[in-house]
Amino acid sequence: MAVYATATRSPQLLLVLSTLGLLAIGAPQPPNIVLLLMDDMGWGDLGVYGEPSRETPNLDRMAIEGMLFPNFYSANPLCSPSRAALLTGRLPIRNGFYTSNAHARNGMPPLTRHPAAYTPQEIMGGIPNSELLLPELLKKAGYTNKIVGKWHLGHRPQFHPLKHGFDEWFGSPNCHFGPYDNKVKPNIPVYRDWEMVGRFYEEFPINLKTGEANLTQIYLQEALDFIRTQHARQSPFFLYWAIDATHAPVYASRPFLGTSHRGRYGDAVREIDDSVGKILSLLQNLGISKNTFVFFTSDNGAALISAPKEGKFCFLSSGPSMQKVLQSMHSAVIDPGGSNGPFLCGKQTTFEGGMREPAIAWWPGHIAAGQVGGLAPVRMSRSRAGSVEECPCQSGTLLHGCLKGVLHLFQVSHQLGSIMDLFTTSLSLAGLNPPSDRVIDGLNLLPTMLQGHVMDRPIFYYRGNTLMAVTLGQYKAHFWTWTNSWEEFRQGIDFCPGQNISGVTTHTQEEHTELPLIFHLGRDPGERFPLSFASDEYQDALSRITPVVQQHQMSLVPGQPQLNVCNQAVMNWAPPGCEKLGKCLTPPESVPEKCSWPH
Amino acid sequence: MAVYATATRSPQLLLVLSTLGLLAIGAPQPPNIVLLLMDDMGWGDLGVYGEPSRETPNLDRMAIEGMLFPNFYSANPLCSPSRAALLTGRLPIRNGFYTSNAHARNGMPPLTRHPAAYTPQEIMGGIPNSELLLPELLKKAGYTNKIVGKWHLGHRPQFHPLKHGFDEWFGSPNCHFGPYDNKVKPNIPVYRDWEMVGRFYEEFPINLKTGEANLTQIYLQEALDFIRTQHARQSPFFLYWAIDATHAPVYASRPFLGTSHRGRYGDAVREIDDSVGKILSLLQNLGISKNTFVFFTSDNGAALISAPKEGKFCFLSSGPSMQKVLQSMHSAVIDPGGSNGPFLCGKQTTFEGGMREPAIAWWPGHIAAGQVGGLAPVRMSRSRAGSVEECPCQSGTLLHGCLKGVLHLFQVSHQLGSIMDLFTTSLSLAGLNPPSDRVIDGLNLLPTMLQGHVMDRPIFYYRGNTLMAVTLGQYKAHFWTWTNSWEEFRQGIDFCPGQNISGVTTHTQEEHTELPLIFHLGRDPGERFPLSFASDEYQDALSRITPVVQQHQMSLVPGQPQLNVCNQAVMNWAPPGCEKLGKCLTPPESVPEKCSWPH
Repeated sequence: MAVYATATRSPQLLLVLSTLGLLAIGAPQPPNIVLLLMDDMGWGDLGVYGEPSRETPNLDRMAIEGMLFPNFYSANPLCSPSRAALLTGRLPIRNGFYTSNAHARNGMPPLTRHPAAYTPQEIMGGIPNSELLLPELLKKAGYTNKIVGKWHLGHRPQFHPLKHGFDEWFGSPNCHFGPYDNKVKPNIPVYRDWEMVGRFYEEFPINLKTGEANLTQIYLQEALDFIRTQHARQSPFFLYWAIDATHAPVYASRPFLGTSHRGRYGDAVREIDDSVGKILSLLQNLGISKNTFVFFTSDNGAALISAPKEGKFCFLSSGPSMQKVLQSMHSAVIDPGGSNGPFLCGKQTTFEGGMREPAIAWWPGHIAAGQVGGLAPVRMSRSRAGSVEECPCQSGTLLHGCLKGVLHLFQVSHQLGSIMDLFTTSLSLAGLNPPSDRVIDGLNLLPTMLQGHVMDRPIFYYRGNTLMAVTLGQYKAHFWTWTNSWEEFRQGIDFCPGQNISGVTTHTQEEHTELPLIFHLGRDPGERFPLSFASDEYQDALSRITPVVQQHQMSLVPGQPQLNVCNQAVMNWAPPGCEKLGKCLTPPESVPEKCSWPH
Repeated sequence: MAVYATATRSPQLLLVLSTLGLLAIGAPQPPNIVLLLMDDMGWGDLGVYGEPSRETPNLDRMAIEGMLFPNFYSANPLCSPSRAALLTGRLPIRNGFYTSNAHARNGMPPLTRHPAAYTPQEIMGGIPNSELLLPELLKKAGYTNKIVGKWHLGHRPQFHPLKHGFDEWFGSPNCHFGPYDNKVKPNIPVYRDWEMVGRFYEEFPINLKTGEANLTQIYLQEALDFIRTQHARQSPFFLYWAIDATHAPVYASRPFLGTSHRGRYGDAVREIDDSVGKILSLLQNLGISKNTFVFFTSDNGAALISAPKEGKFCFLSSGPSMQKVLQSMHSAVIDPGGSNGPFLCGKQTTFEGGMREPAIAWWPGHIAAGQVGGLAPVRMSRSRAGSVEECPCQSGTLLHGCLKGVLHLFQVSHQLGSIMDLFTTSLSLAGLNPPSDRVIDGLNLLPTMLQGHVMDRPIFYYRGNTLMAVTLGQYKAHFWTWTNSWEEFRQGIDFCPGQNISGVTTHTQEEHTELPLIFHLGRDPGERFPLSFASDEYQDALSRITPVVQQHQMSLVPGQPQLNVCNQAVMNWAPPGCEKLGKCLTPPESVPEKCSWPH
């Protein structure tokens, strides 16, 4: 397929500097990098992505001042692998964030099956030392790196973020979802740098009844303080703001509780929107917005049910039947969670709802803002004479490539983007090249953001070590379809509540490797109408997809799987610093066992 | 419920003038009115409503320069009743655009059941003389009125639009969907004013194979010419631009064909977007944009399948099974149609996807544009001290009412709006009062648009003479649920392809009048999770909804049903003007019969 250009503005100077690697050596200071990574926030949760309540004025404004990516993907429908992919620029199958214990398993067991043994706290694995993380590399260009929020790349000592390139950390190694204020097993610790400073539900309260927690405000303050400090030090900085407020149990601070049209989930979104606004405002007030690249995205699709209010079921997407189950079990009320807009299913699945993410790039003075001046009708190079010859695009390409000169309200890039691109793009911003001794899946998006280039590239959708699907251009081919097992589904665990597409949202693992289901995502973003196998369009799409997949699979060297072995002894019983706080717990005997990942 | 104010700007001068009715008498000329009514376009079809391909820069810009209504409704999930409601300001149950032949019938039969007798061309009824239409009333304030496009309020002589207040007409009385280039029965005539000037598929070709038709360009030219002429005459004008390009069979003119990421449906949307841009630009170029109120909306939700390419099934929404049926019948390829975003089902249904519409108001200098200046974080009156007392809103109302001072990118009104409000609002713009001798359902939205007022009002969802559902505030109560019959559904006619919510998307008519299903549309816009009957929230919502419905039903006087009697003899065999063109056909014997409306 041809590389074609989209409707954007002229190249920017800095691109040249950056791609030549000039910034790092004696040249002007490289730009600061701020990656805002949400947790379980869906594509459809922002006003600018159509959320009907329209409660994200700051993110909407960020989009109009920057660039919107409607086709931006996570590297996995689950948080840990997605985050590992972001920080390594590599697919989870390469960096080890997958399981090979069973076929096509995400590596996230349901509470209903393992009520006492569900937690990632038990996981033995984590980010291998052999992986090169973005902050490690940025250090070489003089960056000071901070992670605020959820690490999730392993909680045992060797996996500590300060051993992998970060200079500072405020946050937790695991998800705040559990155990909930457990009196027997360890609550998740919160770290400042090397040592824990407390635990969720203890020193850092989350009120499961009211949904009140001050965590987003604390994370915001950490971000603002870090930015101010690094600005004063005149050090280029990398801030990885990986907050977890829209992951169940969903929380917000008191001023935001009850303020949304959307219930508690909306309260959390509004607090995040407000926080993003404050971060961007600080950059502007400090006069460093033009020297700070900011990117907003999420780790995976929205979990379509976020949590019962007295939540113990944080990671479950659930249908009405699950609602009944939970209500009878806990008298809890289910609050629907986030929105994946028009896309199919959500978190845990390799349908679009599981992996397509909200994505906004912001870099004033470099990424051109949308054109908000007077109204400008579309000028089409083909519209006057109705002649194809007038079109500067290659024959057969979309006219989209001919829309140069159109004043779009939003700068929109139809580039297929990946969370892994943030790795490569950040390196490019720092004037660094990605490591050459390994496969890097992330692309440098600067040519897209600054020059409007659109590069052909596949998006791979994995569950565990199984390639479930691939998207190339507008076509998505499913080689396997599966939501979860009938057994789970009948218990009420439903990753596609209200959605049911015969032969697509299957509850048995259906193989289509010989004859993949192919969808045209432009015409059919909801993956409802597979192309007819007999159509020319199907054959053409397949003939383009097949060699890309073959090439990928033939050259693939899977990493050592990190999500295979669990052990209760490795939980956060006694993290460093627990002595000072009197919060050490005694670990049980070490019994490594194969983790069970039922979906 | 309390009336609460939204986040908007200060009142505008003209509101005062207008509501006092000063404009009509000796005062400055009242504003021109342009209503842009789409046909089967869905809530999710615009970039500004989140459509992933983002191909509507002009409509997006219209939204940022005007006001966006995310909660705007049609008066019916089908075109004729919806249009009758717009022009009368009254529910179809009052103005007669319903059937009482069977329970809860929309009045639109499927081709599969009546292959030779499906068409609205057979309908005996139309807009009663007793109804007062918007253009009739506007004439009293000196307006010149033109309808461009689809009339659909009856095609027999007494229903002609020029007998109901319009001064000019270019367009057709029925839908272009059929019969398709029929050699035996009449193709739909196209009128200029009193006389037909040709027929679809004959003088006005629509190429069903390629999708090419020049109709939108013709309609655009009609609009531009009318605006220029009335401007030169210094006459206030009302333009009702009721084009039909996204109704199946979907068409676009050659320069737009093949230009969209979304297939032919997207081509049509892009041509419409371009046309709207040209209309707004003309208003600006003529210097009359500040004296022209423009409103963009659609007649009902998107039909979730728009048409087979060799379309004979234009009004069907269809699932994969229908796809198989059609493919086997016609070797046709199904193109998915429009998008209803995150909402449930589509056209024909009383779920949100059937009746929630895209809606944008534009009136530069009066409706304040969104704030596109520098980034401004949300200032919350409750956020500093965390104290509710600081909030100027009434206790218990959403903080939304406290967001005064926030710079929103979009001016968004959460007013529950109705297509019938365009009647009352237009009268207010003209300095006229609505008729006082009948019930008018439309509200005057000027206080909403100019002062940010939000008024409490119910939205009623009817099928035929059956009240299926009502929305009040954030709560929607379903008294009846039904998509269509099992018989139809098993034939592949599916108004909710890919969506299946047990007990909600029912294929038998399920009565819930005693205990309605209630959804919170803010938390659950997709109508997936009915509130628990036992919850306080349910009881509270029901106690507010019940008296509103009782009051509505007790005072309701249904109009004479217009969609009950069909007759092949009344089809467009020999419209006025056919003699000159040699296009008269001989009608069959008159045999009135009860219309059969199976869904």
